[in-house]
Amino acid sequence: MSAQPDFRTWMEGVQARTEDALGRFLPDAASVPAKLHEAMRYTTLGGGKRVRPLLAYAAGELFGALDDAVARAACAVEMIHVYSLVHDDMPCMDDDALRRGKPTVHVAYDEATALLVGDALQAQAFEVLAGSEEVAPARLVQMLRLLAEAAGTKGMCGGQAIDLDSVGISLSLEELERMHQLKTGAMLRVSVLLGALAGRELSAPELQALKDYARAIGLAFQVVDDVLDATADSATLGKTAGKDAAANKPTYVSILGLAPSKALAEQLRQQAHQALAPFGEQALRLRELADLIVQRKA
Amino acid sequence: MSAQPDFRTWMEGVQARTEDALGRFLPDAASVPAKLHEAMRYTTLGGGKRVRPLLAYAAGELFGALDDAVARAACAVEMIHVYSLVHDDMPCMDDDALRRGKPTVHVAYDEATALLVGDALQAQAFEVLAGSEEVAPARLVQMLRLLAEAAGTKGMCGGQAIDLDSVGISLSLEELERMHQLKTGAMLRVSVLLGALAGRELSAPELQALKDYARAIGLAFQVVDDVLDATADSATLGKTAGKDAAANKPTYVSILGLAPSKALAEQLRQQAHQALAPFGEQALRLRELADLIVQRKA
Repeated sequence: MSAQPDFRTWMEGVQARTEDALGRFLPDAASVPAKLHEAMRYTTLGGGKRVRPLLAYAAGELFGALDDAVARAACAVEMIHVYSLVHDDMPCMDDDALRRGKPTVHVAYDEATALLVGDALQAQAFEVLAGSEEVAPARLVQMLRLLAEAAGTKGMCGGQAIDLDSVGISLSLEELERMHQLKTGAMLRVSVLLGALAGRELSAPELQALKDYARAIGLAFQVVDDVLDATADSATLGKTAGKDAAANKPTYVSILGLAPSKALAEQLRQQAHQALAPFGEQALRLRELADLIVQRKA
Repeated sequence: MSAQPDFRTWMEGVQARTEDALGRFLPDAASVPAKLHEAMRYTTLGGGKRVRPLLAYAAGELFGALDDAVARAACAVEMIHVYSLVHDDMPCMDDDALRRGKPTVHVAYDEATALLVGDALQAQAFEVLAGSEEVAPARLVQMLRLLAEAAGTKGMCGGQAIDLDSVGISLSLEELERMHQLKTGAMLRVSVLLGALAGRELSAPELQALKDYARAIGLAFQVVDDVLDATADSATLGKTAGKDAAANKPTYVSILGLAPSKALAEQLRQQAHQALAPFGEQALRLRELADLIVQRKA
C-alpha cells in the first residue's frame, strides 16, 4: 500500500471534498428565503472535524463507492449532525453561545431562525440522500430507512430525550452507555453503514463487523468527549468546556474517574481494530479513524 | 357509483384508519424514552381534521393503492404537518398555548420536549414512508424525495422563513401566494402525489392534473384559513383566532378584503374541479375534498 497518501493528507482531502459537496448540496444563499439559506450555510460550512463524513468516506472506499454516492451519504449524516447541534445549542436545551469557535445560530441570528435551520437541515439530509442516482433503488431505500432510524427516537432524538431526563440523577455505567449509544453512537454507526452501502450490498458478516467497529468507536468517542470536557479548555474545544459537570450530567469521568476512562477509551480502540480484522489491509482508513477518535485533543 | 358511501361516512372511515395507523406507526408510549414517546402520541393522536391524510387516501383510491402503502403515505405527511405545528407553537415562533383544543406541547410538557418531539416526528415520517414494502423501490425513492422537498426549504420550511420575514411589511398578492404555496401548499400537494404514487406510477399528464388540483386547493385552504381567522372564534377553531391580524401578518383578507377573499376561494374550488376532469367519476373523493376545504367552518 505504499502508493497510499498518509492519514493526514487523506483526511484533509476528505474534509475538502466534504466542504465542497456540502456547499453544492445546501441551498444557494442568494435564493429566497435568503436569510434561512444563509444561516444554514453559516452553521454547516467552514468548520467541524467532519468525523461522520470521514467515517462514511473511509467505509465507502472500502466498498468501492462512487464519488456522488459517498458524497451524498457523507453530507446527509453531517447535515443531521449539524441540525442536532443547532437545536441543542438553543436556550431551551443547552443554551450555548459558542460552537466550533463561532457564535451559535440563535446568537448570530435569532431563535426562530435556529429552529427553522435545524428543521430544514433535517429535510435537506433526506433530500440529498434520496437524490443519489448511482445507488440501486432498493439499497437506497435501505439507506434512507437506516438514516431515519438513526436520527429518530431509536437513535439520536431518543438519546437526547434520555439525556434530558438524566440531569441530576445518577446513572449506572450501563444506562450511561445506552444513552450514548443512542445519542451519538447511532449517527456514527449509520455514517459507517451508509458509506459502505453507497458502494455495494453488504453480507451479514460484513454488516456485523462494521456494526461492531462502529459500536466501539461510538462509545470511545463519547468517553473521550467526557475526558476532554473535564481536562481541556474552551478555546481548544471550540465550545464551552466543563458544561456537563457544571450541569450535573453523568459522564464517564464522573462515574469511572479520569484514568479508568482513558483506559476504557484505549480498550475500545483495540476492539475497533479487532472488528476490522476480516477486511485486512483495505480497512486502513477505518483503523486510522479509530486511532484519531481516541487520540484527538479536541 | 351507487355502492359508494356518502362523503361523511367515507371521511370518518379514513379519519379512523388514519388514527389507527398513526397509533401503530408512532413509538410505544411505554418504551424508553417514555416521556418523548408519550408527548409524540399526545400531540399526534386524537385530534385534527386530517386534511393531508384525507387527500392521500382519496388519491390513493383513485390510483389503486394498497392499504399499507397509502397508510404510510398518509401518516408520513401527517407527521410532518404535526411536527411543524409543534415547532410553530413554541415561544420563539407563534407562542401559542392552544392547538386542536388542547394545551400545546411546550405548555403540557416543556420547551425542550417540544423541540425534540418535532425533530423526532420529522425523522419518524421518513422512517414510516421508507418502511413501505408494497411500493416498488424506485417509486418509493421518488416519494421520499418529494416528501423531503415539500418539507424543506423548497417547501414548508422555506414558506415559514418567508412568513417570519414578512411580519410588519406589506406583501403583494403574488408574494403572499408564493409564501403560502411553500408554507402550506407544498405539503398539501405532496399529500395528493404520495397517495397517488402509493398506487402506481403516474404519466406526465396525470401528474400535471394532480398538481393543478393540489395548487388550487392549497391556495383555497389558505384563503379560507384567513377568512376563518378573521371571522370565527377560538373555540370553533380550536386555536387562537385573530392571531395573524394581531401580529400584523399579511393575509388574503387584509389585502383583498373579506368578500373578495370568499369569492377567490370559490373560484379556486371550481379550478380544482376542472383539474380533475380527466379522471371522471373516479375522482369523486378529491372533488368532495375540494368542497370540504372551501366550505369548512373551522
